[in-house]
Amino acid sequence: MSHTPSTSAPIKPRTPAGVMELLPPDQIAFQRLLDTIRRNFERFGFLPVETPVMELSEVLLTKSGGETERQVYFVQSTGALEKADSGRPELALRFDLTVPLARYVAEHEHELAFPFRRYQMQRVYRGERQQRGRFREFYQCDIDVIGKDSLSVRFDAEMPAVIHAVFSEMAIGKFTIQLNNRKLMRGFFEAQGVSDPEQQALVLREVDKLDKRGEEHVRDTLTGEGFGLPTATVAAILDFVKVRSTSHADAMARLDALGDGDGNDALREGVAELREVLELVRALGVPENHYALNFSIARGLDYYTGTVYETILDAYPQIGSICSGGRYENLASHYTKSKLPGVGISIGLTRLFWQLREAGVIDVADSTVQAMVALMDADGLPDALDIARRLRAGGINTEVQMEPRKLGKQFQYASRAGIRFVVLAGEDEQARGVVAVKDLKREEQFEVARDQLASTLKVELEQSRALEGR
Amino acid sequence: MSHTPSTSAPIKPRTPAGVMELLPPDQIAFQRLLDTIRRNFERFGFLPVETPVMELSEVLLTKSGGETERQVYFVQSTGALEKADSGRPELALRFDLTVPLARYVAEHEHELAFPFRRYQMQRVYRGERQQRGRFREFYQCDIDVIGKDSLSVRFDAEMPAVIHAVFSEMAIGKFTIQLNNRKLMRGFFEAQGVSDPEQQALVLREVDKLDKRGEEHVRDTLTGEGFGLPTATVAAILDFVKVRSTSHADAMARLDALGDGDGNDALREGVAELREVLELVRALGVPENHYALNFSIARGLDYYTGTVYETILDAYPQIGSICSGGRYENLASHYTKSKLPGVGISIGLTRLFWQLREAGVIDVADSTVQAMVALMDADGLPDALDIARRLRAGGINTEVQMEPRKLGKQFQYASRAGIRFVVLAGEDEQARGVVAVKDLKREEQFEVARDQLASTLKVELEQSRALEGR
Repeated sequence: MSHTPSTSAPIKPRTPAGVMELLPPDQIAFQRLLDTIRRNFERFGFLPVETPVMELSEVLLTKSGGETERQVYFVQSTGALEKADSGRPELALRFDLTVPLARYVAEHEHELAFPFRRYQMQRVYRGERQQRGRFREFYQCDIDVIGKDSLSVRFDAEMPAVIHAVFSEMAIGKFTIQLNNRKLMRGFFEAQGVSDPEQQALVLREVDKLDKRGEEHVRDTLTGEGFGLPTATVAAILDFVKVRSTSHADAMARLDALGDGDGNDALREGVAELREVLELVRALGVPENHYALNFSIARGLDYYTGTVYETILDAYPQIGSICSGGRYENLASHYTKSKLPGVGISIGLTRLFWQLREAGVIDVADSTVQAMVALMDADGLPDALDIARRLRAGGINTEVQMEPRKLGKQFQYASRAGIRFVVLAGEDEQARGVVAVKDLKREEQFEVARDQLASTLKVELEQSRALEGR
Repeated sequence: MSHTPSTSAPIKPRTPAGVMELLPPDQIAFQRLLDTIRRNFERFGFLPVETPVMELSEVLLTKSGGETERQVYFVQSTGALEKADSGRPELALRFDLTVPLARYVAEHEHELAFPFRRYQMQRVYRGERQQRGRFREFYQCDIDVIGKDSLSVRFDAEMPAVIHAVFSEMAIGKFTIQLNNRKLMRGFFEAQGVSDPEQQALVLREVDKLDKRGEEHVRDTLTGEGFGLPTATVAAILDFVKVRSTSHADAMARLDALGDGDGNDALREGVAELREVLELVRALGVPENHYALNFSIARGLDYYTGTVYETILDAYPQIGSICSGGRYENLASHYTKSKLPGVGISIGLTRLFWQLREAGVIDVADSTVQAMVALMDADGLPDALDIARRLRAGGINTEVQMEPRKLGKQFQYASRAGIRFVVLAGEDEQARGVVAVKDLKREEQFEVARDQLASTLKVELEQSRALEGR
């Protein structure tokens, strides 16, 4: 599959619309975020899974003809294209990680231990309308716990703890994990006489416009012709969805205020679940200023059935939720008769990275290259390579200048590339068994014995890391 | 994009043919290989790049109608499918990482520092004929150094050093990096009167059958009707391609034996390049029993122009090359008029993993989960979560049993999952401020103070890692 030079005019090198491709400094920053997420997912005992990007259309698109399918990318080999079969192509790209998880768990049901805790961090594909900040290829970073037959609500408490660990380490500013419960919501609406799930969904869609349109507009709509809800009901709904707790005690008080449901089972169960989840979130060490009740959170009404989560960056609420998810009743009903309830969260990292960069929250990362061995003259190369070998053996990521250039150019290169240490060994240093090190970050120079070079730089790097709280 | 439960018969959950999907223990082992490769690529100063899986067909398939295009997967959104446009679809999946690299470097030429050192570890797609051990989706792990206008042959010496670092750390057995040089080869064949590049290719293809068909068969073919080469020429060719050096000194002697080319520039240059590369490979600390000349290595004749590499597992030669590459003259002639010479290597990790597993070379990896906090009774959960919080804060990957089960079941779960430490805190331990730890690997139990739990397990894990040479 090599390519031979052509003599024709060059083809303009470019990527398709709607994909994010980064230059190395940004790719390093992105990779650090991926690593942070993975490290914390593993810290909480989640196991890695990767699935193929292509799934069988028949398996992927169990619900055909819907909005989902309109955004799906289909895949065809040349052979299939030539046959010009008019049917739906056999293969399609995954559009999320949830359907592949359902397929995976159902397929390997008898080889997995339940509750099955998996993380998956891969790209997904959606034929989104072209728009700034919307991507057709993007990373999702998901965790889910899947139970067989049942899964205690206690697992719902782990999600905020993972979210807290991930975003604390990302150091992108103060965030709040907002919780709600679909049962509580349903019970509340039923108590208000809004019992039809479809009507609940429509009311919630209106309520979602509170921030944009203002309270008066929403109240007018809900009491108006289309909905025709009584004024008192609308007032109660608006009071309810505006609930945001300000502390753990306040959250508990808000739940107490809802009472025991007065025979309304959904409300009673929702309150009990949220209470248990909040107590365990606290036991898991999540600081109370990092979580709150938010009774306006609904998320995919037909999918989530219990706890639901959203995560807001306090200083950038306009970014929206940076990590969301919830509890669902049955993961894989399309593929198995086993009941597989679960709870999970998802981070859309490509969009989040783009938003954080736009907001100026992401610093330029240090290069992955930590040291560069400069080359004084061509004859010095074997010695420079030996120095590099020692550095690498000592765990320092090292590049060597393989071709002699003016020293000024070499320093300029290191500086532009974000490489921190430049190592030099001229004849004088060689004779004395030392090397000269220029620390471009601290703007200072020092000499160190050859056999202590790697350990010295290692200490310097670890000190900086500790100082910067990483 | 959620999915609602259906009442119809379940769809059989399965993946398309030709993809590799792993259960978590194998996925952990696979991830460890990816991590090892990445760590070593970074150690040698290569920078990360990721490109979109979809490229514009026009950009990807600069050479249309060839074998390449027959294996390409095209991508179409539903909208494009509906239009039933009979032309070539606009998007296609990458089939390697070299063409995307060429496109990337040409596109970002003015934003990159040259020599540009990049690594890329992503999946690629080929519509391979269905066959055991052949994959349609597989990881490639590539490094390349790209120069602008020129790139010293010295960079060719870095590749064996990276290969040596990667596979030493992988600990999959003794391997040999075999080197050859296309110029030397071309010069030799010219000296034998086989000057036509196409004839050289045909001769090499026959020579490639030495192992399978035996020397006599190859000799008969080359002296026979189709080729009609003189017996002496064939003898010289067979002697040449059988060259394998046994030490650094032997390699140098073999090169000396080829002389200065007698006015044959290609031979002279090839010998000089190989000599310089071998000297620098040694300076980079690659042990001499890990590299050798092999004059039969050709690899993609129309693409590589200088040094070429293959890597063989000494105990499993039948696996073939586990890491290959070489020097090329011009990376991106389709996209830019700039001359961009480079050198690179590639590891096809999916196939390699499959082969190593088949050969029994890959051990079952330890789980990513290092500790499990057992649950004695439901009331103990907040305490168990607090113990887990301390463990995680101390860098130990920890799972908590969230639901009370018989202790025997909990131990069984940990054991099956490959979790090493089970932590218990009954009333007695709680009263004394300690926890009990069962080390399932060493089959021993000990008590440790709560506030020293994480640091104690960390030390145990690091000692094991040191003992196992990881």
